[in-house]
Amino acid sequence: MHHEVADLPSGPLDIYRKKTSFNWKDMLLFIDGEEVLAFKQHVFKTLENDPLFARRPGEDVPLEKMRELTFLRYQQKLFRYDFITKEEAMVNPWKTVVLSDCLGMYDWALGAKFFLNRGVTTVANSGSGRHNKYVENTENMTTFGCFALTEVSHGSNTRAMRTTATHDPSTQEFIINSPDFEAAKFWVGNLGKTATHAVVFAQLYTSDQVCHGLHSFVVPVRDSKTLLALPGVLVGDMGKKLGQNGLDNGFALFHNVRIPQENLLNKTGDVTPDGRYVTPFKDPNKRFGTSLGALSGGRVSITRMALVNLKLALTVAIRFSATRRQFGPKDEEEIPVLEYQLQQWRLIPYLAAAYALEHFSKSIFMNFVEFQIGLIMRDKSERQAELGREIHAIGCTSKPLGSWIAQRGIQECREACGGHGYLAMNRLGDLRNDNDPNCTYEGDNNVLLQQTSNYLSCLINKLHVCGATHLVIILTQQVYSLLIISVPLAAYKWLVCFLLEQSQKRLEQQRASGKDEFEARNNSQVYYCRSLALAYIEHNCLQRFHELTTDQDTPAGLRPVLSKLCALYGLWSLSNYMATLYQGNYLSGEKPPELVQMAILTLCSQLKDDAVALVDVFAPPDFILNSPIGNADGQLYKNLWSTVMQGNQVLERPSWWKEFCSDKPVVGSLRPKL
Amino acid sequence: MHHEVADLPSGPLDIYRKKTSFNWKDMLLFIDGEEVLAFKQHVFKTLENDPLFARRPGEDVPLEKMRELTFLRYQQKLFRYDFITKEEAMVNPWKTVVLSDCLGMYDWALGAKFFLNRGVTTVANSGSGRHNKYVENTENMTTFGCFALTEVSHGSNTRAMRTTATHDPSTQEFIINSPDFEAAKFWVGNLGKTATHAVVFAQLYTSDQVCHGLHSFVVPVRDSKTLLALPGVLVGDMGKKLGQNGLDNGFALFHNVRIPQENLLNKTGDVTPDGRYVTPFKDPNKRFGTSLGALSGGRVSITRMALVNLKLALTVAIRFSATRRQFGPKDEEEIPVLEYQLQQWRLIPYLAAAYALEHFSKSIFMNFVEFQIGLIMRDKSERQAELGREIHAIGCTSKPLGSWIAQRGIQECREACGGHGYLAMNRLGDLRNDNDPNCTYEGDNNVLLQQTSNYLSCLINKLHVCGATHLVIILTQQVYSLLIISVPLAAYKWLVCFLLEQSQKRLEQQRASGKDEFEARNNSQVYYCRSLALAYIEHNCLQRFHELTTDQDTPAGLRPVLSKLCALYGLWSLSNYMATLYQGNYLSGEKPPELVQMAILTLCSQLKDDAVALVDVFAPPDFILNSPIGNADGQLYKNLWSTVMQGNQVLERPSWWKEFCSDKPVVGSLRPKL
Repeated sequence: MHHEVADLPSGPLDIYRKKTSFNWKDMLLFIDGEEVLAFKQHVFKTLENDPLFARRPGEDVPLEKMRELTFLRYQQKLFRYDFITKEEAMVNPWKTVVLSDCLGMYDWALGAKFFLNRGVTTVANSGSGRHNKYVENTENMTTFGCFALTEVSHGSNTRAMRTTATHDPSTQEFIINSPDFEAAKFWVGNLGKTATHAVVFAQLYTSDQVCHGLHSFVVPVRDSKTLLALPGVLVGDMGKKLGQNGLDNGFALFHNVRIPQENLLNKTGDVTPDGRYVTPFKDPNKRFGTSLGALSGGRVSITRMALVNLKLALTVAIRFSATRRQFGPKDEEEIPVLEYQLQQWRLIPYLAAAYALEHFSKSIFMNFVEFQIGLIMRDKSERQAELGREIHAIGCTSKPLGSWIAQRGIQECREACGGHGYLAMNRLGDLRNDNDPNCTYEGDNNVLLQQTSNYLSCLINKLHVCGATHLVIILTQQVYSLLIISVPLAAYKWLVCFLLEQSQKRLEQQRASGKDEFEARNNSQVYYCRSLALAYIEHNCLQRFHELTTDQDTPAGLRPVLSKLCALYGLWSLSNYMATLYQGNYLSGEKPPELVQMAILTLCSQLKDDAVALVDVFAPPDFILNSPIGNADGQLYKNLWSTVMQGNQVLERPSWWKEFCSDKPVVGSLRPKL
Repeated sequence: MHHEVADLPSGPLDIYRKKTSFNWKDMLLFIDGEEVLAFKQHVFKTLENDPLFARRPGEDVPLEKMRELTFLRYQQKLFRYDFITKEEAMVNPWKTVVLSDCLGMYDWALGAKFFLNRGVTTVANSGSGRHNKYVENTENMTTFGCFALTEVSHGSNTRAMRTTATHDPSTQEFIINSPDFEAAKFWVGNLGKTATHAVVFAQLYTSDQVCHGLHSFVVPVRDSKTLLALPGVLVGDMGKKLGQNGLDNGFALFHNVRIPQENLLNKTGDVTPDGRYVTPFKDPNKRFGTSLGALSGGRVSITRMALVNLKLALTVAIRFSATRRQFGPKDEEEIPVLEYQLQQWRLIPYLAAAYALEHFSKSIFMNFVEFQIGLIMRDKSERQAELGREIHAIGCTSKPLGSWIAQRGIQECREACGGHGYLAMNRLGDLRNDNDPNCTYEGDNNVLLQQTSNYLSCLINKLHVCGATHLVIILTQQVYSLLIISVPLAAYKWLVCFLLEQSQKRLEQQRASGKDEFEARNNSQVYYCRSLALAYIEHNCLQRFHELTTDQDTPAGLRPVLSKLCALYGLWSLSNYMATLYQGNYLSGEKPPELVQMAILTLCSQLKDDAVALVDVFAPPDFILNSPIGNADGQLYKNLWSTVMQGNQVLERPSWWKEFCSDKPVVGSLRPKL
């Protein structure tokens, strides 16, 4: 199969597209490959051709309607299009990620609804053969699933969940109960309006009132014939969120709801007919870990989701900057704002970060797949165990890395588009709002970072602390040498070691001063463990990107631009740590910050003519991007004006015009007379 | 008049309120004074008692309805309540700011509608006696005004506006024309649905086709009896924005619309009956400056608006953090998240910034009033001229300072409240969306910073470049000494001088290498002029706050906590410049960053028990705050749950339930057969 990449419409963006240093179609093929490209185009075209997916940029859609549309698009359409069969997903797991990218580029709420329901097949992982019917029912849409862990008063502290599941040997049932509303399940995606069944996490009690810890249970919550709540279940919609409002997040409060004993997902523990608790795990901590293990893959996906948001925002902001003209050397001739150093510096480092994250998110996903295969193969090797720990450490930091870069990048894009960026139709607001929860769900970013620094602490004895490879020697050479990626890479290696040493010192200081472990760890986060975890993952991301740029399989024609992006990402990220580099004597003297800064500005300037082509590579079709100022034809004002003019009741006088015209107030008539 | 400050309801927040180091009522009285306190309470109570102002947290209000409600609240109520008469505003101009604070705390769209219409009294400033009728008509609501400067294709570059006003001596009229839709007036607040008259900025042409530059004209756009557009005017609503959707921003396209010649606001130039242009200004640049002078005050107000948003977000996040418990030293006993160093470090520096900005925004407003009085008094002194330039420089940077701190602070508050922060009902999303345009309107932040660095460049010869007052000597003493504000203050003074020197060097380098002035300036922004302008205003803000903490009129009981806030704000802001301090040899050796960091953490920890009281001081009543997790009683979960349960159709099955139950899709039925 040979896939033809269509040309982009010509227009004002041509002035940049003609100046690029690389062939954008080569880049597209290199990043995606023909199969994925064809698949993406198929998904995009299918959505564009289906009237149920039609929309108008900036439309004001009521909450209820948004939920309905997302549901219909999912049930009536995605099911029928069945873009990836289970078998295809097994053969090429990456295609599932690509589908998630495509749906997310259209609307994350739809993507979330799709994958959350599918994710209920975690049932298959946590349960056993007896639960296959739930998987089947979900797959053929007889039931609709959701995943209920978080409670009103507990999120990060999952162990402290208070919902109980008490075994009743007399009826062979579990009784699911919420002690009070603070223990209501909360934030459950799909539960607000749609779900008929929930995978509920609850503390398992045997009839002797002994608690055996958190387990998961399949609990019917709504009648699948009527969508009415089942007796004893108070289930409803949480209301409006900052974004992703097409997804119905909900709550559920259980009043002694009885479910058959077999609904316990029994991989980590089971109850015998006579009411005894049995588990294959000796260590309850390990059981708890496995029980939550199903969550790990999510963080790797979220890194990718955040990246998709960043790509969309950059497409809008860079195309806008290449076509918006403001001021110029002469009054009569204005220049594109992309020509300004300041605008380049605001946007192009995020573009470099997007390319770094593109490779990073793909590469850690492949590691994750490798690990999953090991799990399925029941690989008990030390390598498999180590891979598991490393993937946990990477997932816990890749999510903060990706979600924060995206959140800041989107904000910068919004501001870089000025007032036009503040119009809802240009989508930057939705992107900001839809990306925001990536910082929070599947573990608050700041809390997750601790997992990784803990992991690194355990490694310290295995690592050689790098000597002081004096960057300054290299740095004091001319600026050009800085473009060589080895400088930030070496600096990052040193940085991770230095922060690791410092964090250990800090921890030991805290312990020595009599603090207990809880407090010692808490007091070592800011400036130490937290910075360590971030530097670690930035280095990891940079290292992987660097390997790509030097890989023999990377086309020679693309290596120069990729190397520049890599160097820019490295230097730009590193520039946040300049004070630390001085502090550890890795740097000294007056010059280094200036050299780093000049290298960043030089790279931005070298990349500005490539910037449009670099976003063309990852931009979806206009219909999916849904942002008039970001259209591929670069007809900024025509597209904007046309969208404004087709707005709802745009030229009509307001329905309340009579209030203005006839009901004139008397100024001060309600002012209290003193 | 003695004003009684009501006690706050007791509840879970008491554990902090009982530990404060200062009396919060004393602080309230010190900051606001009795008159302002009474006034605020009157405004808040009035709104709370009026059913038209009722609302439900997180309610999903359609765009059209939001605009209607804002209009009705304004015309039907604010006019009648007439909280401040013109005379009162003259006697105490600060009360106008307080009213803006109060309305903004309720809803910025309402505040904006109110002040934008009032601002049309700039007519009075730019025009002359013949325009009094417009002012009167606006004041008694016969007409409704707006201010039309920005065009579709021009915002920052105001000089490049393309709307024309051509004089026709035969009829004694001006013909207002938009050459094409790119010159349509755009983003005009109140113009979308409501305005009957616009103050339009257009290039004035005399009948001999000579252009005399930008002038402003009163142009009727809608019939004030019917609210229908007048012939030749295409006027409408721009549609949904990211926030402030109660305000109807609009556009207008003029097709040779004739207005009487007298509608020219003739302060800066006029046309004689025989069609000659006359102006009191010899220098056209100066005329242009005066013509835009009316905009300057806005930036000072925006600094305050941003601060109000930050205050609201901090109230929510700090009360939440003081009542949300998660994890703890022992499994069975969880502690408030405010006890964690990390949470303190995320929030308390923003609290310090809010106190710094509270004094700063008040103090620059007073400078502005002084300057305005000088204008009215026709003060031609050098001092008045210098004050004018300085206020311009301060306004241009105070807006970026305030709006960016608020934008980042609100985002941090959102994340610090976890999932609950992502619920619309808790208002952090609205605050982020409503604050966002503060970064853009009345001049894009990054563009404005250039105004100030240009001003500073001109001053360089007047300034002594500070010698290297070695901070390090002081720094290497014990941590406690760092709490003394003199350290960051001295460092900032040095920093401003250093950046000024460096910026000049950079500019001269650029010129020497043959760049023209336009390019030389553009290439000196990043890392130089931009940083200079920010450091300048941060120093200014810190210096003013420091003076307040040492002022004899500041109550002794409040000075300790204010000093801590001042030191924290100073050190936290300064910590962004550590690399520069090394670079300029102001710092050296290993210790300084660590000492600064330890001082920041120590101050956060010392302030954490005061944090709740510090937000109590600026928190509005619950009704105005409109965020269940931020209520003064600290009943976090009860308030949240109660709001969720009273949501619209929260427990009802969705209207589209039959789609789920009867219209089951066949998986893959729409999949193309290959």
